[in-house]
Amino acid sequence: MSTYQVNAFAAQTAREALEPFQYELPEIGPEQVDIQVEYSGLCHSDLSMLDNDWGFTQYPFVPGHEIVGKVIRVGESVKGLSEGDSVGLGWFSQSCMHCDECMSGSHHLCGDMEQTIVGRFGGFADVVRCHWGWATPLPDSLDMSKAGPLFCGGITVFNPIVKSKVQPTDRVGVIGIGGLGHMALQFLNKWGCEVTAFSSSPDKEAEARQFGAHHVVNSRDDEAMQRIAGSLDFILNTTNVTLNWPMYLNILRPKGIFHNVGAVMEPMPIPAFSLIPGEKSVSGSPLGSPALTRKMLEFCARHDIFPMTEEFALHDVNNAFEHFKSGKARYRIVLKV
Amino acid sequence: MSTYQVNAFAAQTAREALEPFQYELPEIGPEQVDIQVEYSGLCHSDLSMLDNDWGFTQYPFVPGHEIVGKVIRVGESVKGLSEGDSVGLGWFSQSCMHCDECMSGSHHLCGDMEQTIVGRFGGFADVVRCHWGWATPLPDSLDMSKAGPLFCGGITVFNPIVKSKVQPTDRVGVIGIGGLGHMALQFLNKWGCEVTAFSSSPDKEAEARQFGAHHVVNSRDDEAMQRIAGSLDFILNTTNVTLNWPMYLNILRPKGIFHNVGAVMEPMPIPAFSLIPGEKSVSGSPLGSPALTRKMLEFCARHDIFPMTEEFALHDVNNAFEHFKSGKARYRIVLKV
Repeated sequence: MSTYQVNAFAAQTAREALEPFQYELPEIGPEQVDIQVEYSGLCHSDLSMLDNDWGFTQYPFVPGHEIVGKVIRVGESVKGLSEGDSVGLGWFSQSCMHCDECMSGSHHLCGDMEQTIVGRFGGFADVVRCHWGWATPLPDSLDMSKAGPLFCGGITVFNPIVKSKVQPTDRVGVIGIGGLGHMALQFLNKWGCEVTAFSSSPDKEAEARQFGAHHVVNSRDDEAMQRIAGSLDFILNTTNVTLNWPMYLNILRPKGIFHNVGAVMEPMPIPAFSLIPGEKSVSGSPLGSPALTRKMLEFCARHDIFPMTEEFALHDVNNAFEHFKSGKARYRIVLKV
Repeated sequence: MSTYQVNAFAAQTAREALEPFQYELPEIGPEQVDIQVEYSGLCHSDLSMLDNDWGFTQYPFVPGHEIVGKVIRVGESVKGLSEGDSVGLGWFSQSCMHCDECMSGSHHLCGDMEQTIVGRFGGFADVVRCHWGWATPLPDSLDMSKAGPLFCGGITVFNPIVKSKVQPTDRVGVIGIGGLGHMALQFLNKWGCEVTAFSSSPDKEAEARQFGAHHVVNSRDDEAMQRIAGSLDFILNTTNVTLNWPMYLNILRPKGIFHNVGAVMEPMPIPAFSLIPGEKSVSGSPLGSPALTRKMLEFCARHDIFPMTEEFALHDVNNAFEHFKSGKARYRIVLKV
C-alpha cells in the first residue's frame, strides 16, 4: 500500500501564521481523485475558519477551497475523469451520491457532505484529494490562473440567479462589491438584467460599472435608497454584516426576492409586513451543484467572465492573508503553487 | 342623480359595540357594481380593524370583507357581470387595472388598491359596492351560506399553495387550526399532499384530521418538533403570534419554504444560517388575484371544500364578535343578512 506526502501550509492554532506542513495521504479510495494544485483562491471563509469564527475549525488547519489543477491519480471507480484532466474543486469535496438531494442533482444540499477545509486538509498545498463528483472539468478556453475563485465565490452567486429564476428582463441589485459581488455584477450583466450595485464604499463606483453595474447606489444614503423603492425584482446580498433589512425589502418590487449568501451571524429581524403585502421572500443558499458548476463555467467561457485577481506565491501565503485582511484586495487573491 | 341608502352596522369608536348605521351611496360609477349582501363572514382582520390595532381605522367603521350576495346594480362599463349574478367580494374592492401588476394578472399586488373596510364601508350591511373586477362570480354548485370566508381566509391560504408551486408529492405543514388553517388543511389534502397540522391546542386534533391532516403535532412539544426535523417541503403559518422560527425552519427539508400569512407584528428574527445551508426561504403573501379566486372556487366546488361555519344573524353581530373573541368559534362565523 502506497501513501503520498503532501506539502501544505497550515496554522497550528487560531489566528496564527501559516507554516509549511507535511501530511500523508493514504492509498486512494475507489471513487477519489488527487489533484495537483496549480492555483488556490483565498476566500473570506478561509479567514473565518483560520480564526475559528464558526467554532468548528480543527488544527492543524490547511485552508484553500478554490482550487484548480490537474488530476494526477484516479481511484478505480472514478467516472468521467482521467489523469491529466484540468479540474476545479470548491467548498465541497464529497457527498453521499445516493440521498434524495444527490439523486435529484442537488448534491450541494446532501446531508452527509464533506467540506474541503472542515475536518480535513484543504488546497493551500501541492496536492488535494476529493470525490470525483466534486472535481469539475474546466473548459479548455478558461484561464486557470483566474478560475479558482469561480468554485466558491463564483458558484455561490451564480446558483441564486438560477435558483431564483432571475429573468433577463429583471431589474436586480447586488449588495457588496467584493470577492463575491464583483462576480455577481458580471453574471447579472451578461444575464441581460438591469443591474444596480449597492456599496458603502463610493470609491468602488467606477469598478462596479466596469464589472457591469448600470447604477451604483450608496447604501448609506437613505434618500437615494428611498428613491428606488419598489424597483428591483431581485437583490443578492454578498456581505456578512447586519443591514437595514426592511429598507432593502422596501426596494423590492412586488414578488421580489431578497437572497442572502453572506454569512451574517446576527439573526435578520424581518417584519412579516415587509413580505406579505408585496408577496416578497427572503432566501439563502450555499454554493451550487456540480451540474450547475459546469453550466457556470460554460457561461463564463462564453461571456469572458472572470474574477479580478491578485496573484501571490503559495509560500507568500501570510502576506496574502494580511493583504486580504487590509480590505485592499481587488477583488480576489489567488495563490500560485 | 339617484343615491341609495345602505343599512349597515358600525362602531363609532375603537373597541365599541356595533350599532345600526345608515349611509348614502352616490350614483354608481361606470365600472362599479352594487351587491345585495346575503352573507358576510367575520374575519380576524375585522376585529383588528374594529380595535384599530393597525392604527388606520376610520370611524364610523363598518366591518365585513367576506361577502357573498347578488348583483343588484351595474355601472355602464362593467364587464362580465349582470344584475342577478351571484358574486363574492373579499378584502380588496378595487385596483387600478392598468399598472404592471394588474396587467399581469396580479391585481392583488396593485399599488393603488382600495380595501373593502379601509376608508370605506364594508359588508356588515344590506348593500356593498365594489369594482366589477373584484366581484367574483360564484359557481352554481357552491353553497352561498358558507362561501363568504373563501373570499378572504380561503384565498389567503390558497394563493401561497399556488404561488409556492406546492406539488402533490410534497410533505406540507399548516401552523394554526383556526379560520384560515382549517381551510388550508382541506386545500392541501385535496392537493394530494401529506399534511401535518401544528397546533398548541391538542383538543383540536380530531377535527384537524377531519379537515385533512394526516399528522397532528403539538407545537409546544419540542421533542416531537425535533423528531420531524428536515421532513417538510412547505410550511404555511396562519397564526399571528411570535413562533420559534428557527425550529420551524429546521423542520423544512432542503429547498423548503416557510410561508407566512399571519399578521405577526413583531419582526421575525431569521438566522441567515437557517436559510443558507438548505437553500430555504421565508415568504409572505396577501390574499390572491381575481383570476386565482375563480380557480379556487372551481377547486372548492370540485372537491367539496367549505369553511366550517357558525351562523349568526347580522343584527346579532355583537354576540358574534363576543363568540369570536372567546376563541370558541369553530371555525368561521358567518352573518346572515
